[in-house]
Amino acid sequence: MGRWKPDARGRLERAALELYVDRGFEQTTVAEIAGRAGLTERTFFRYFADKREVLFGGASQLEEFLVGRVADAPDSLGPLDAAIEGLEAVGTLIEERGTFGRQRQVVIAANPELQERELIKLAALSAALAGTLRRRGAEDPVASLTAEVAIAVFKNAFERWAGGSERRDLPQLIRESLEELRVVTADG
Amino acid sequence: MGRWKPDARGRLERAALELYVDRGFEQTTVAEIAGRAGLTERTFFRYFADKREVLFGGASQLEEFLVGRVADAPDSLGPLDAAIEGLEAVGTLIEERGTFGRQRQVVIAANPELQERELIKLAALSAALAGTLRRRGAEDPVASLTAEVAIAVFKNAFERWAGGSERRDLPQLIRESLEELRVVTADG
Repeated sequence: MGRWKPDARGRLERAALELYVDRGFEQTTVAEIAGRAGLTERTFFRYFADKREVLFGGASQLEEFLVGRVADAPDSLGPLDAAIEGLEAVGTLIEERGTFGRQRQVVIAANPELQERELIKLAALSAALAGTLRRRGAEDPVASLTAEVAIAVFKNAFERWAGGSERRDLPQLIRESLEELRVVTADG
Repeated sequence: MGRWKPDARGRLERAALELYVDRGFEQTTVAEIAGRAGLTERTFFRYFADKREVLFGGASQLEEFLVGRVADAPDSLGPLDAAIEGLEAVGTLIEERGTFGRQRQVVIAANPELQERELIKLAALSAALAGTLRRRGAEDPVASLTAEVAIAVFKNAFERWAGGSERRDLPQLIRESLEELRVVTADG
């Protein structure tokens, strides 16, 4: 083992994403990721169980963060606004990670198996969000419907943002998708 | 091969669902399904590629039906109402199949792999629906957002219906979930 290198996790993530974008997820090996990051395979496996976890390893912290934000949202907010406020905070986190979110989306969009994994993660996020809305006092079916719809708003905004032609940031796009939802539901 | 038996597909479906509910999906073999239906395994494989297809084989006809209904909805309907009208018609079809839809839901809810497959099918249905809304003149991001939200409404209603404690039928529950969505988006 080499000596300790600062930000090993971040370097491995950036190296992996670059390789996934350039060569494709399937074609990239852990040895190549570690090599590009100037680290060993052994170090890779200290941070990630496998190649896929570079893309999905953050899901549980993200869920915890979202649940915390929604639980702490002012009582005056209805369930949808509380959910969206939490998702906007998630959007700010994603913005702070720079190109990671967009590159990740490019990689996932190119691979059906990764798309399926992403759907499953979003469904888990929706279930966690519904649970938090229930603890805030929303009843079912409103809690689960609101969570599903808030995740749909987030997904819609995220896809526009990741598409790259938008100059607005992700929290702005989430707010805008919510306004579009309001127009759509009012109009039919 | 035995002589021709009427409604072999329906008998295989009913036999499979009963066994999946009683013993679990994983524990049921094709031989058992065929045996209970009074048919051969060879006949089973004439209708279904595998055990899973008994549950998911109808997805492409359902998609085609939904797309047709939404395309033919009156021009006066906005995208959300057109989508919901199509999904109500899907609800009527599901009602007409009697216990199949509820039993199917029980089996899927008990098996994570089947839940994943169901999410993927719903995402495909949402994409097809968005395409139809675009052909009706809706632009993106409204078309894709409306499709996602309409599928969320459908899923919410379906889960209530499949839960079995509802006396209302599936199309009524879809309409009611839509009204709840309108309240939620108006209130925040």
